[in-house]
Amino acid sequence: MSSQLEKIKTPEDLRFLSPQELEELCSELRQKIITTVAANGGHLSPNLGTVELGVALNRVFCKEDDSILWDVGHQAYVHKLLNARNKDFSTLRRFDGVSGFLAPNESSRDKFYTGHAGVAISEAIGLAKANALTGKKDAAVVAVIGDGSLGCGIALEALNYIREVNENFILVINDNKMSISRSVGAISKYLTRVITGRRYNKLKTLLKVSLRGVPFGRRLIQMIRKLERVTKSFFVSGAVFEELGMKYVGPINGHDLPQLLDKFEKIRDIKGRTIVVHVVTEKGHGCKFAKERAEAFHGCGPFNPETGEFTSKSAEKTFSDSFAESLVSLGEKHREVVAITAAMSSGTKLCEFEKRFPERFFDVGIAEEHALVFASGLAAGGLRPVIAIYATFLHRAMDCLFHDICLQKLPVIIGIDRSGVVEDGPTHHGIYDLSFLLSIPDLQIYLPADEGELQDMLFYAHYIKSPVVIRYPKGYSTNLTEKRTPFIPGKSVELRSGKDVAIWCAGRECETGLKVAQLLESYGIASSVVNVRSLKPFDSGKLKLDASEKVIVTLEDSQKEGGLASLVDSLLINEPHKEILHFGWSCQDFVPHGKPDALRKAYYLTPQDITEKIIACLKK
Amino acid sequence: MSSQLEKIKTPEDLRFLSPQELEELCSELRQKIITTVAANGGHLSPNLGTVELGVALNRVFCKEDDSILWDVGHQAYVHKLLNARNKDFSTLRRFDGVSGFLAPNESSRDKFYTGHAGVAISEAIGLAKANALTGKKDAAVVAVIGDGSLGCGIALEALNYIREVNENFILVINDNKMSISRSVGAISKYLTRVITGRRYNKLKTLLKVSLRGVPFGRRLIQMIRKLERVTKSFFVSGAVFEELGMKYVGPINGHDLPQLLDKFEKIRDIKGRTIVVHVVTEKGHGCKFAKERAEAFHGCGPFNPETGEFTSKSAEKTFSDSFAESLVSLGEKHREVVAITAAMSSGTKLCEFEKRFPERFFDVGIAEEHALVFASGLAAGGLRPVIAIYATFLHRAMDCLFHDICLQKLPVIIGIDRSGVVEDGPTHHGIYDLSFLLSIPDLQIYLPADEGELQDMLFYAHYIKSPVVIRYPKGYSTNLTEKRTPFIPGKSVELRSGKDVAIWCAGRECETGLKVAQLLESYGIASSVVNVRSLKPFDSGKLKLDASEKVIVTLEDSQKEGGLASLVDSLLINEPHKEILHFGWSCQDFVPHGKPDALRKAYYLTPQDITEKIIACLKK
Repeated sequence: MSSQLEKIKTPEDLRFLSPQELEELCSELRQKIITTVAANGGHLSPNLGTVELGVALNRVFCKEDDSILWDVGHQAYVHKLLNARNKDFSTLRRFDGVSGFLAPNESSRDKFYTGHAGVAISEAIGLAKANALTGKKDAAVVAVIGDGSLGCGIALEALNYIREVNENFILVINDNKMSISRSVGAISKYLTRVITGRRYNKLKTLLKVSLRGVPFGRRLIQMIRKLERVTKSFFVSGAVFEELGMKYVGPINGHDLPQLLDKFEKIRDIKGRTIVVHVVTEKGHGCKFAKERAEAFHGCGPFNPETGEFTSKSAEKTFSDSFAESLVSLGEKHREVVAITAAMSSGTKLCEFEKRFPERFFDVGIAEEHALVFASGLAAGGLRPVIAIYATFLHRAMDCLFHDICLQKLPVIIGIDRSGVVEDGPTHHGIYDLSFLLSIPDLQIYLPADEGELQDMLFYAHYIKSPVVIRYPKGYSTNLTEKRTPFIPGKSVELRSGKDVAIWCAGRECETGLKVAQLLESYGIASSVVNVRSLKPFDSGKLKLDASEKVIVTLEDSQKEGGLASLVDSLLINEPHKEILHFGWSCQDFVPHGKPDALRKAYYLTPQDITEKIIACLKK
Repeated sequence: MSSQLEKIKTPEDLRFLSPQELEELCSELRQKIITTVAANGGHLSPNLGTVELGVALNRVFCKEDDSILWDVGHQAYVHKLLNARNKDFSTLRRFDGVSGFLAPNESSRDKFYTGHAGVAISEAIGLAKANALTGKKDAAVVAVIGDGSLGCGIALEALNYIREVNENFILVINDNKMSISRSVGAISKYLTRVITGRRYNKLKTLLKVSLRGVPFGRRLIQMIRKLERVTKSFFVSGAVFEELGMKYVGPINGHDLPQLLDKFEKIRDIKGRTIVVHVVTEKGHGCKFAKERAEAFHGCGPFNPETGEFTSKSAEKTFSDSFAESLVSLGEKHREVVAITAAMSSGTKLCEFEKRFPERFFDVGIAEEHALVFASGLAAGGLRPVIAIYATFLHRAMDCLFHDICLQKLPVIIGIDRSGVVEDGPTHHGIYDLSFLLSIPDLQIYLPADEGELQDMLFYAHYIKSPVVIRYPKGYSTNLTEKRTPFIPGKSVELRSGKDVAIWCAGRECETGLKVAQLLESYGIASSVVNVRSLKPFDSGKLKLDASEKVIVTLEDSQKEGGLASLVDSLLINEPHKEILHFGWSCQDFVPHGKPDALRKAYYLTPQDITEKIIACLKK
């Protein structure tokens, strides 16, 4: 197997494959993607949808100077396989292995690290402009963007700007029918509607025949010619792109390799214009289960490559499950509770709320800014909006959190999911947002240690009617205590007591803290474990008391700079205290991809590492 | 004078004015705005452009339940005057006076604090949805947005979403011809093009006459009916809005009060749809100098209300001047240097660069996200982009700074203008961004104390080829030293020496530091003043040395939390040190509007206040 793929050392080698061999290559690529994702987890259905597109683009735009920009990057496995990642592809998403997204440190043919949606058009305009200004006339720039990402604010800003620079690049719309789903928005639908030209041609013929020899006929024909541009926009796809200053080609069947090759070869040499190529693909193409359950296999864990059955079907509850369930209970009691997601309803589990209260559920598509300001409008109108969003995507709406929610003092609740490191790497780690959150006036910040607390915090947030974020990590939650102390913001809870060391833990890190305390005990060191529960307000009284007696240790799954560590330092700087130790991620460098456990090991953040450092400190 | 305006206690009183009296009211409003802005500074031309619109909307939508949302809020003076701010309007923009923007704490008819562009549509969708869900059937929602703001990512996201919710609200496009300027973008132009319907009606008549009794005539007429929607989009304005699911009304002359009143009265009772009202206004209408120099009088300082001559024509150089001049020098030497602004070319003074190198200058419109990612594309293509942006608007592009510049390690330089508090208030203070900046790996952060340093830092940033931000405040810069020490990131500079206290200052706060040191000297206390110069990297060696000997004081014109204060605390927490004192703004609450000097006084941040606190600390 893999006989064709083995031949491809650089994309230029694609030139030497016959049409038959290229078809074989596509099959091999599909097979390789299925087996690798089955073993490692990853993005399946989007990558199966872009096999032919990836082959075609890499064959036509194979030179070092050519740039192929894959928006978001979770549709770029084929690009990676054709560009020097084939050999190591089995290490996909593993620590020190091949990244699941584009990564310039792996290949110069990956131009940008990617992971957040909608930026490829702006990147392409920039690159094309740079090529023009530096005289690189033959360097091609191709951006591939999904129709779902076209509703992103930044993608729309960039579309809006194309005509201003009017540079030579190719914008491939990978239309995998996301625009059929209701969450994508009218502009995207308008842009990507696929209509055959038949009606248009029929009308033209009919008019010509009819108007011969008719009174005013010639004037009419003149007027109708002026109309042509417009009638086209009704009867032919993509004419809006032409109005926005681009040339439109398509729609093309994205799984018809010969057609793709033919079109891109022709387009390659058209100069001086932005060309939109509308390619229609199918998510999961060529794999029955991935096609039928395209959303489940969008990003997924390991599965059986024959049957598509997921390997680990844990019955354990995740923090997301718990948040979503609690939200449903809240919604049952309070009719004014509404839920919002920005195209993450399955990841955040808000789909449960949607099923139960469809008229109170809003999926705004990949539009985080709009999600937050829309919530602010709902709240101003007397409703109680709850948003669930991934920490890393909240970056997109930082200004809205500041300007449109906190400054307004509106009671919007945000569940920040995927807080902490995740397998996908620096574009997805939820460790960079806390610094900004902590500096926004009037925002309360809660960190549940387990699912029970998450529920209490959500109910409390609903009760107090002020802007609140609740940060929780990806994955499972064990219940730390059978009996819960009622949640009061600014009140910490001691999970165990001990006189030498006080371990102050943020959120799920309480689990790590308890493990460390146990290890310390085996060395004869008595430590208390404190669940901070809320960062703002913060239990500074208890902290100062602890600091006067014990060595203070902080544990957090976020950056220490701007996180719990910084907060504790600021509170204790003028207080009596012993040595203070901080554990968390550092802004000295970006944390790479890999399983969180592997990352913790690499960064000396396992319970054993932490214990050893505490002991070393006590010995000083 | 002001006889009509005096009658208006609440907007409902507008109902009792005759058409003649309403016209008089408009004149009075214009006069009041001109005299007030002439005395206090503020936004002149946009507010003169919305006098009739403000009167019409407040007359038709006068009930407490009605919401009129003015995007950005710098076009809402008339709204403020008609809603309980008339009496105190002379305190406009003064500390403890009337805010220059919408402010719910002044009137419940201001629904949101505003200041950042493009959010009104999302707010309106939210409010309209909330009204629908809570059964407020008679409450109207009106959003007024400028055509320039339509190119904002968030505004486009919201437009994209209107059809999904399909709620009853009115979207007023205040088309003051910003879309004629080149920086606004193709979508906005496409949406707001104004065409008369004459050609369309002519065509329809002609076709009807021509096709009577023609072979295939009936089939043709059928097809042409289908075409009608489309032909309309070519011959009539606003049809694109109809395609996006809205009803379009307009264009209307925004200075024709009877027509405005007539249309809004009619529209008020149309239920179940989003209605776009396209109003064409003229910036500065009714005031010769404001009309002719609409950009200069957009936001301006005090002037002579008769002549339009500005009162304070200082010859002193601002930090913005200095940045822009240095950028021109850099551009002269290095052809690959290009400049980008997001609709702030005059505020940031980049217009100088534009004049000199038009082909290397890019104004992307109000599209901060696109500005940063476009820069990232330019940098990846070998150019050296320099962006100038206001601190508060950088919030909008935090994710792009993180994901598209720093993660890529691309050499983009960002001049962060208006860092520190400004007159406009919390929506515009540049004090909230630093926390996030400090937590992004691989970002260097420079803070010039004066214009000479600003130049050195810009040149250095160009030289080192890594992501750099240079933060500088609004206003004038005195040269602190005649002879400058060469700038090296991570190296501080001692501006004066002293054994008791070390005052560590960020940026222009060095001036304050020197004043404090002088005051301390008069009390017999010897203090050194340290110019930190760069926050990242930071001169921690010198700080630790100072801390071992002196009381450390930090001064910054930003939030202490997440700023210099937090950084110093984290560096010294485990080091020997005396008491540490921090001066800056605090995230305990939002800092209101007012002249920076008045704010410093109110927050005990004058040199005298600081000196007293230091003395009190030393006495302990």
